[in-house]
Amino acid sequence: MVEDASEFQRARSPEAKRRRETAILAAARSLGAERGIRDVTLTDIAAAVGMHKSALLRYFETREEIFLRLTAEGWAEWSDALTAQLRESTEPGPAAVARAFAATLAARGMFCDLLAHAPLNLERNVSLDAVRDFKLATLAAREPISAAVRERLPALDEQDVVDLIATAVSLAGAMWQIANPGAEVAALYRGDPRLAHAVIEVEPRLARILTATLTGLAAGRSRPQA
Amino acid sequence: MVEDASEFQRARSPEAKRRRETAILAAARSLGAERGIRDVTLTDIAAAVGMHKSALLRYFETREEIFLRLTAEGWAEWSDALTAQLRESTEPGPAAVARAFAATLAARGMFCDLLAHAPLNLERNVSLDAVRDFKLATLAAREPISAAVRERLPALDEQDVVDLIATAVSLAGAMWQIANPGAEVAALYRGDPRLAHAVIEVEPRLARILTATLTGLAAGRSRPQA
Repeated sequence: MVEDASEFQRARSPEAKRRRETAILAAARSLGAERGIRDVTLTDIAAAVGMHKSALLRYFETREEIFLRLTAEGWAEWSDALTAQLRESTEPGPAAVARAFAATLAARGMFCDLLAHAPLNLERNVSLDAVRDFKLATLAAREPISAAVRERLPALDEQDVVDLIATAVSLAGAMWQIANPGAEVAALYRGDPRLAHAVIEVEPRLARILTATLTGLAAGRSRPQA
Repeated sequence: MVEDASEFQRARSPEAKRRRETAILAAARSLGAERGIRDVTLTDIAAAVGMHKSALLRYFETREEIFLRLTAEGWAEWSDALTAQLRESTEPGPAAVARAFAATLAARGMFCDLLAHAPLNLERNVSLDAVRDFKLATLAAREPISAAVRERLPALDEQDVVDLIATAVSLAGAMWQIANPGAEVAALYRGDPRLAHAVIEVEPRLARILTATLTGLAAGRSRPQA
């Protein structure tokens, strides 16, 4: 992933610019996966890619823009994987759909990390154009998911699926943070029986909650149940 | 809220120490409510309370510890309000319980902001003792909520209510961030019809999703539904 700095300085064509952006994103992805988004600075990314920080800022305006681009890529990649998984299974009912959401999200730790950081930090330190591009990218990624879910659960309407996706990504983001608190805090949770509630496993918990949410949505929100 | 700095320097008794802590927390609460947690620094809090930053650090180890204390207070206060609201209503079924969660959370914007920041940022820059105290405080706040929900919906078991509370606070934290993106980004969302999905209202959306989740939990997770 580290290219020669002089090559970076020479490159001026659109193609060369794209290659540099790709290298920067790859370095950020690798560092983010290794130590969590929160602890990766622009200086770290520049060092990993073999550029000066000032040179890197010609490609991305802030570290948040880099991670917002990775979040958008994460949405597209997750959308493909989830849609494929939804179309492969033939098991009827909400539980199988919920399990496909939970399995594909839990398998993408850095994407879950990014999902929590996007509205809190990433969208707040980039240009309006970058926010617009990001929102349009997530919108495009939602569409195939929505179509695949409604094929599996025809009782759901458009708004139900919007709510389902929002619930899945919000919970995945929050749960990943709670499930990955750093080594010292994880040891604290495991060592004190009063803190057992703080030890969570993302995939089964997400599957259980989304099964309930989908069951309720499919049962129809208008019909009150005791 | 601003007290005389010399008075702060004189105070040495446990009572005086408590008063100072209270003043620091009040200043942080006021600044956090005004501009969002993300943009409040330790220097801002010290200035608002009329102390030097170095003096303030004798009371709290980091800005994150201050906000984690406010999050714990927020849990206790929300627990009281929600429990009271759950006990006042006599309307049967999941929808009324969901509305009580949504209304009490949506009325507490800074608490929602803190709920998103706690696992992501606050718990990651404090001592293990501070994390333990915080976790025990949230556990204590969950107990009366759990009891009040199970009085209203006896079909739910303990784990259902744990999942319900986790879902409610995770969604409230994430949705509050999306609903409060800052003035410029809010204008962008409102000005571009393609971004209409980014404009969300916390209370009705939270009520709708939690109604579905509760309906599904009450219907029983083991019984598959189409």
